[in-house]
Amino acid sequence: MQDFLLDRAAKKKWIQGVCKQVFESYGFGPLETPTVENFELLAKKGTGGEAIKEEIYYFKDNSDRELGLRFDLTVPLARVVASNPNLTLPFKRYAIGRVYRYDRPQAKRYREFTQADWDILGSPSLLADYEILAIAIEVMKKLGFKENEFKIKINDRRLLEEVAIGCKVAKNKIVDCFRSLDKIDKIGKEEVEKELKKKGISTQILGQLNAKGLVKLKIKNPLAPLVQLLKANDLAKFVEVDLSLARGLEYYTGTVFEVAVKDSPSVGGGGRYDKLVESYGGKPTPAVGCSFGIERLLDSLEERIAIASPVKILFIPLGDKAVEEALGISAKIRALGTGCELDLMNRGIGKNIQYADKKGIPFVTILGDNELKEKALTLKNLKTGKQQKVKFADLNKLEKIVGE
Amino acid sequence: MQDFLLDRAAKKKWIQGVCKQVFESYGFGPLETPTVENFELLAKKGTGGEAIKEEIYYFKDNSDRELGLRFDLTVPLARVVASNPNLTLPFKRYAIGRVYRYDRPQAKRYREFTQADWDILGSPSLLADYEILAIAIEVMKKLGFKENEFKIKINDRRLLEEVAIGCKVAKNKIVDCFRSLDKIDKIGKEEVEKELKKKGISTQILGQLNAKGLVKLKIKNPLAPLVQLLKANDLAKFVEVDLSLARGLEYYTGTVFEVAVKDSPSVGGGGRYDKLVESYGGKPTPAVGCSFGIERLLDSLEERIAIASPVKILFIPLGDKAVEEALGISAKIRALGTGCELDLMNRGIGKNIQYADKKGIPFVTILGDNELKEKALTLKNLKTGKQQKVKFADLNKLEKIVGE
Repeated sequence: MQDFLLDRAAKKKWIQGVCKQVFESYGFGPLETPTVENFELLAKKGTGGEAIKEEIYYFKDNSDRELGLRFDLTVPLARVVASNPNLTLPFKRYAIGRVYRYDRPQAKRYREFTQADWDILGSPSLLADYEILAIAIEVMKKLGFKENEFKIKINDRRLLEEVAIGCKVAKNKIVDCFRSLDKIDKIGKEEVEKELKKKGISTQILGQLNAKGLVKLKIKNPLAPLVQLLKANDLAKFVEVDLSLARGLEYYTGTVFEVAVKDSPSVGGGGRYDKLVESYGGKPTPAVGCSFGIERLLDSLEERIAIASPVKILFIPLGDKAVEEALGISAKIRALGTGCELDLMNRGIGKNIQYADKKGIPFVTILGDNELKEKALTLKNLKTGKQQKVKFADLNKLEKIVGE
Repeated sequence: MQDFLLDRAAKKKWIQGVCKQVFESYGFGPLETPTVENFELLAKKGTGGEAIKEEIYYFKDNSDRELGLRFDLTVPLARVVASNPNLTLPFKRYAIGRVYRYDRPQAKRYREFTQADWDILGSPSLLADYEILAIAIEVMKKLGFKENEFKIKINDRRLLEEVAIGCKVAKNKIVDCFRSLDKIDKIGKEEVEKELKKKGISTQILGQLNAKGLVKLKIKNPLAPLVQLLKANDLAKFVEVDLSLARGLEYYTGTVFEVAVKDSPSVGGGGRYDKLVESYGGKPTPAVGCSFGIERLLDSLEERIAIASPVKILFIPLGDKAVEEALGISAKIRALGTGCELDLMNRGIGKNIQYADKKGIPFVTILGDNELKEKALTLKNLKTGKQQKVKFADLNKLEKIVGE
């Protein structure tokens, strides 16, 4: 687990703010759920069960109840939807929150991380899948990723099933089969062939792969209508059909997505999961959604994001009389919309300028005996070195000056 | 622990946004720390120790390490400052995050809640205490509390010590003494007298109380300079010196604050704690800060906050051709700055209008065969019932229309 200090925390908040703004512009509303959930609930998802105890933060409280820290934001969503049968549909919710996995620590894998999820419950329509993808693309663009820097990989569970059945792979071995195929890049075709044989899976499917590891399609592609919509709206260039994408197929029932960034692990993913709410005791509820890993995005973007200091002026009063005046004047500056920090250390101009530099505050203003007499501040631009006087009566001009 | 859905979650986010904006305008930067901390660290604060196990979420992980969920945001702050001796001072940080207490559940007391903290480390100056108070007042005003609806109660540990010593209360019984005095409102002076006697505390101090339970001051008041600054800046009207305020006196070393709201438990509090960082192994570091309870503020404010829907238009396409067009047009509307939600249920106008009403979306726009021919949307204001056509070429006019 890690701390996020100042600039890094501000960048993280900025990324979360971009997500929130895009989600809300499409009509998604926020949902906040507790960090601690009953273990029974957490164990219900996918292939979880008791084995999940090793992978999550599991504990008993003082009353001996079995609890755990949530490992994703989808399980709590399923709980909320299952237990609120009268929610207005479609239920479009976003959630930005921390989740916990008890992984062995690895580089860029943390035990606590922040996810930003957006999901549509109640709509079986292709338009819902499309909207989830369009939002992923819009967020990536607003974060500053260029067209050639990311791709949304898509796949479809139904497509995999058709391919596999055509190649004599048993239905209960499909996921295993595609997990092996997924390794072709890393370990080569021969090793994958050995693996398939060991798992008792027909190797016929290997003859169906093209150079990139993708299966040559000779079947009806359930992704075609979605791809068609993406093309019509000039979004196809951000998307790539990738049959080796096999994330969580126990759980997804249709489309599967992954947000891939150059030279980095995936920054997000999702898909359609029409059976989940039902498995939590709710009404059958079609569902599709996606999730960004905020720290992954931060690691990818950190060097190119620059967060401007919300404070534009460091106020340096010199002497007791100036300090008293400074409290009122700095309050006025803030009330007029300009962030203003006041020296709390009673230190000279030089040290204060160093402090402003470290914090990225672009201006200092000095209030000494002369300024008190003249009823004017001395405002200094730390970048250009230019100084000017601003009368106490003209504080409303400050916003424009520091904004230039 | 509780879920926050849609409107309630949006209100909570709005409150947090007001806090963030005010904190940042004074030069406070964000700090995010993990939810899980080592138990040893958590046990170190105040009178904590082993007994604290009963009051927090304590557990062992799979490697048998003793852990706990953080119960406040101050302990992690002290850890960060103690272990980063080269932080630029003053270190002004805010943190808005969830904390956990294993209390017996009570009305309006939750085991998980959100705190918004702002603290200044490294400044021993009265100005730092003043700034912390000024921020509390500004946040309360920006949240919509009127002058007569809240008060910041202040006290000072040094003041209590002087009063108590003057009344022959032993130094190690001061906290106990003021805890009893704090109950005068609830149980009456006679019961408090009994309690003091039982605790072996001189009852002489009861003779020093005025009608309101406050001690008549005949000593040098360490709060006087702070009160003077508050008066000079027209903030004294929001502040009340209250000697019965005795929160966490084991831990505070100077000023103590509490944000009191009519007919509600306190919504925040803080004070000066100059010894904490040292007790965590850091350099001696003066510190003063305060914390809001976000759920307390939400409970107080919920009925008077109205969050406008970020989506202004629900887009209703009628027929397949319209659906295809709608994806592109709604994307343009969003790109022009107006939140726009698209019908994903393929349902008629009536049901869509009901949905818009429920979500507080003020306009619907209809795209049917006629509109496609005319290359214009029909825009309907759900409040006035007024309809108008907006040409596809004039989508940039929408922002102004829906903003009126």
